[in-house]
Amino acid sequence: MLKDQTFLITGIADENSLAMKTAEKILENNGKVVCAGLGVTPFHKNISEKAQAFLDKNYNDFQTACHKVLGDQVYTAPLDVTLPESLDFLAKDLYQKDIKLNGFLHAIAMDKTIRQKSVKPMLEVTVEEFNETMNVSAFSLISLSQALLSNNVLQNGASIVSLSYIAAEKVSSFPYINISIAKAALERLTMEIAHELGRKYGIRANAIRFSPYMGSKAGNATLNAEDVEKAHQKSPLGNALPEDLAHEIVHLFRKETRITGEIRHVDGGFHIMG
Amino acid sequence: MLKDQTFLITGIADENSLAMKTAEKILENNGKVVCAGLGVTPFHKNISEKAQAFLDKNYNDFQTACHKVLGDQVYTAPLDVTLPESLDFLAKDLYQKDIKLNGFLHAIAMDKTIRQKSVKPMLEVTVEEFNETMNVSAFSLISLSQALLSNNVLQNGASIVSLSYIAAEKVSSFPYINISIAKAALERLTMEIAHELGRKYGIRANAIRFSPYMGSKAGNATLNAEDVEKAHQKSPLGNALPEDLAHEIVHLFRKETRITGEIRHVDGGFHIMG
Amino acid sequence: MLKDQTFLITGIADENSLAMKTAEKILENNGKVVCAGLGVTPFHKNISEKAQAFLDKNYNDFQTACHKVLGDQVYTAPLDVTLPESLDFLAKDLYQKDIKLNGFLHAIAMDKTIRQKSVKPMLEVTVEEFNETMNVSAFSLISLSQALLSNNVLQNGASIVSLSYIAAEKVSSFPYINISIAKAALERLTMEIAHELGRKYGIRANAIRFSPYMGSKAGNATLNAEDVEKAHQKSPLGNALPEDLAHEIVHLFRKETRITGEIRHVDGGFHIMG
Amino acid sequence: MLKDQTFLITGIADENSLAMKTAEKILENNGKVVCAGLGVTPFHKNISEKAQAFLDKNYNDFQTACHKVLGDQVYTAPLDVTLPESLDFLAKDLYQKDIKLNGFLHAIAMDKTIRQKSVKPMLEVTVEEFNETMNVSAFSLISLSQALLSNNVLQNGASIVSLSYIAAEKVSSFPYINISIAKAALERLTMEIAHELGRKYGIRANAIRFSPYMGSKAGNATLNAEDVEKAHQKSPLGNALPEDLAHEIVHLFRKETRITGEIRHVDGGFHIMG
Repeated sequence: MLKDQTFLITGIADENSLAMKTAEKILENNGKVVCAGLGVTPFHKNISEKAQAFLDKNYNDFQTACHKVLGDQVYTAPLDVTLPESLDFLAKDLYQKDIKLNGFLHAIAMDKTIRQKSVKPMLEVTVEEFNETMNVSAFSLISLSQALLSNNVLQNGASIVSLSYIAAEKVSSFPYINISIAKAALERLTMEIAHELGRKYGIRANAIRFSPYMGSKAGNATLNAEDVEKAHQKSPLGNALPEDLAHEIVHLFRKETRITGEIRHVDGGFHIMG
Repeated sequence: MLKDQTFLITGIADENSLAMKTAEKILENNGKVVCAGLGVTPFHKNISEKAQAFLDKNYNDFQTACHKVLGDQVYTAPLDVTLPESLDFLAKDLYQKDIKLNGFLHAIAMDKTIRQKSVKPMLEVTVEEFNETMNVSAFSLISLSQALLSNNVLQNGASIVSLSYIAAEKVSSFPYINISIAKAALERLTMEIAHELGRKYGIRANAIRFSPYMGSKAGNATLNAEDVEKAHQKSPLGNALPEDLAHEIVHLFRKETRITGEIRHVDGGFHIMG
Repeated sequence: MLKDQTFLITGIADENSLAMKTAEKILENNGKVVCAGLGVTPFHKNISEKAQAFLDKNYNDFQTACHKVLGDQVYTAPLDVTLPESLDFLAKDLYQKDIKLNGFLHAIAMDKTIRQKSVKPMLEVTVEEFNETMNVSAFSLISLSQALLSNNVLQNGASIVSLSYIAAEKVSSFPYINISIAKAALERLTMEIAHELGRKYGIRANAIRFSPYMGSKAGNATLNAEDVEKAHQKSPLGNALPEDLAHEIVHLFRKETRITGEIRHVDGGFHIMG
Repeated sequence: MLKDQTFLITGIADENSLAMKTAEKILENNGKVVCAGLGVTPFHKNISEKAQAFLDKNYNDFQTACHKVLGDQVYTAPLDVTLPESLDFLAKDLYQKDIKLNGFLHAIAMDKTIRQKSVKPMLEVTVEEFNETMNVSAFSLISLSQALLSNNVLQNGASIVSLSYIAAEKVSSFPYINISIAKAALERLTMEIAHELGRKYGIRANAIRFSPYMGSKAGNATLNAEDVEKAHQKSPLGNALPEDLAHEIVHLFRKETRITGEIRHVDGGFHIMG
């Protein structure tokens, strides 16, 4: 279904990341992937030893998992979406290696106001925490698109998919407060570029709200098993599985489908329950 | 993708019907189809000659198109969703022929207040016109599900897709007034059975809002070329094509995907424009 | 605020009806009301003794409550919204008494598939039950508007308010199944006439989703105390009170406010909880 | 209606500001107002002469208009929502003057990517422009609430209203791109604090989407007459007027109404048009 098409996958932390399941499914459908993971780049200046160690471990886990699951030959590169030079460097590298993208998965989110499964109330969130979460989790959709387009890496007709969740729309029983505002912005940004890039380049952009998922590193760090079980009970079909999400993304990645600007649910029906 | 699966397709009038495009796409994906078209059934009593002639022509066009496009062997049967006996007869016939369904497409709508591309204002619609449109276009989702389930024809885990359009949510510039109320009801019914049949049988139910489309008999009878062109201009990717719709339906028909209760848009982005 | 304005109030069963609280609030704001209650009309033919007794008791309760709460002089009349002659008779009577309406409250709903606080699954609802609920609870908004407008009783710039609830949009934990489809249709009808009557006559139409409420006869017959308490806990401000609803309706009734087509929530914030 | 109640009004630039109309309406309803306008505060460091002159003129216009329209005695103070010290200073000053607030109007927005009625595409917006618009137009709702609550100025049961517009939800034909993302965030923040402050303090928070309006300084600087006229034609009742908005805000400000978390439209029905 995705023959001769290549997609950039962000948001892989390890083997269990949702983004990894998507990458696997793309390969199964005869597509190709390139992967960018959080790591030290030449553009990080004056970072602490602790931060360096964290980033190194993160990148190592990412790369090891990519090689194991997606093959030794898979393209991997470090990326920090808050550094414009890092985005530009990645785009230029892809260009020089003659890798043209038919789309990308934006699966990047970060919220330091969630610690050990508990979360700051909105009124205690600082402007720095608000901005950082907003930039990493929402604006990066724009800066990544900018970098890829200005370097002629993202092709006409490409398909962009971003990961959101139901907390973007409603007050959540999960520890999603500050991040839920960023997800609302991410969804609205997805619609805006669906319009702007759709008219200019035939590029599509859609977002998906997935069931709460503890299997990944991020999910495990933030969610409580009890809350996830409640969502499972509430959803007519139970919580959706990573494979369901991967199917949907592959579907949205397929060529020339005039679906754009949509906020879709892959959630076992969670969103229809009043 | 749909190997060993069989789907009931309603709403085929001729070769150009959206439902026909969907049936073709199911075959391409190795699935099987059975088709029900509007025609005279043994349960029509005392119908006028004119009505008989209309129904006969309709059924003949349907059957001819099915045989031509889907093959001589394709199962076809007459159906009038307003006659409970007709629904029951169809279900029993499928059961006796040992045809188990993995889902169905509900693409049935009728609104006599649209005549020659113009439409009655809401305040002039009679209760009979309201009820008839509501029954044919919305309640039939329930009566068809009832008939298939009570005759053990619809399998656990089946997938139901209904066709709606943006007029279900907003006031439309197309001649959709009375029918738009029925579509709102159809969408809400889709959500209700997503819940009810999801919990009981793992059955999924989703609705799709498709771009305005004049290629079909129904579209051609109701829409103006100018209005369709306006929607085309307004949509970032232009109006979606029947093939886009067929892809989406096949995607929702695939087995064991935990997507349910959704109202999806296949519309080139029309719905994101304020 | 409502000086020299007169509103038709439907949906009063007794002193505790939500519609009665609204009528009281209109009087407090110097407006006038006329009330229509379910009862036997000259247009009921061949009704059973039992039905006659039910309707008589209903009308008697309505009239007694109106006189007690709204004053002996308040206009009261029987109405059955399923009988076009009854609607027409009411409108003509208002016209002959030179009562011009500045708006009306549509608070009429009926669903026989709810019995003793339990409810039929959607798949067991018959077409007759579906139609009856749809006609009484949704189409009556149209037929009442038709009757009032064609008899020159509803003035230009009038304001129409209909009562809905959150179940119109989502699957409900309350015994709202068949009726929820009718409420979805009612909301969509409200939007449609907001457009149609807005352009023609400057008439406004809005719907309100109110918190679950057991204080009224209808609420008490359908809701469980436990479910209402759950909604109270879930809502940031607790369930809204009848007075909150009455305030909102009076607000929407005030002259020349360009608010129309809205589906508003008076629900303590229930609808924002995911 | 608002007797013995005091509200903080932000967003007044001159006599024609929407916030000014609201302040007037509060006085008409026997409430009191205090006004904060953009101006130089003791916490501005090292600002350019040009910036100083701009801020001085802005504050002067604000103060002159307040005195003229709301009376010489009205409380006015400078405020820059991007400076935490400025927010804190205002709150402390109110506290020391024993002014307790029953609510506030958030009508603050800024987007430097709109210049002379034209607007940067999303892909050209820099992270600085994104952050600045987001902070001034959305996060300020939080920082203002923080300052008022931590200084015991905002009372239990208070009512917060924020100004949004339809572009928060859909792609706009107005020059709202970068700002529309901030408005989406503002709406989601309004819902989040409706929950958080509702449970803790019985505080309510709602947002209003108003018709496009050129009468104000901000509207005149950004909107084209032609686009505003198109919205007027599209809306069943035409564009809403500042007085309609003021009525709605006064309604939401009234005590003890259990309406919260709502995104309301005062727009002549614009939002119902598909």
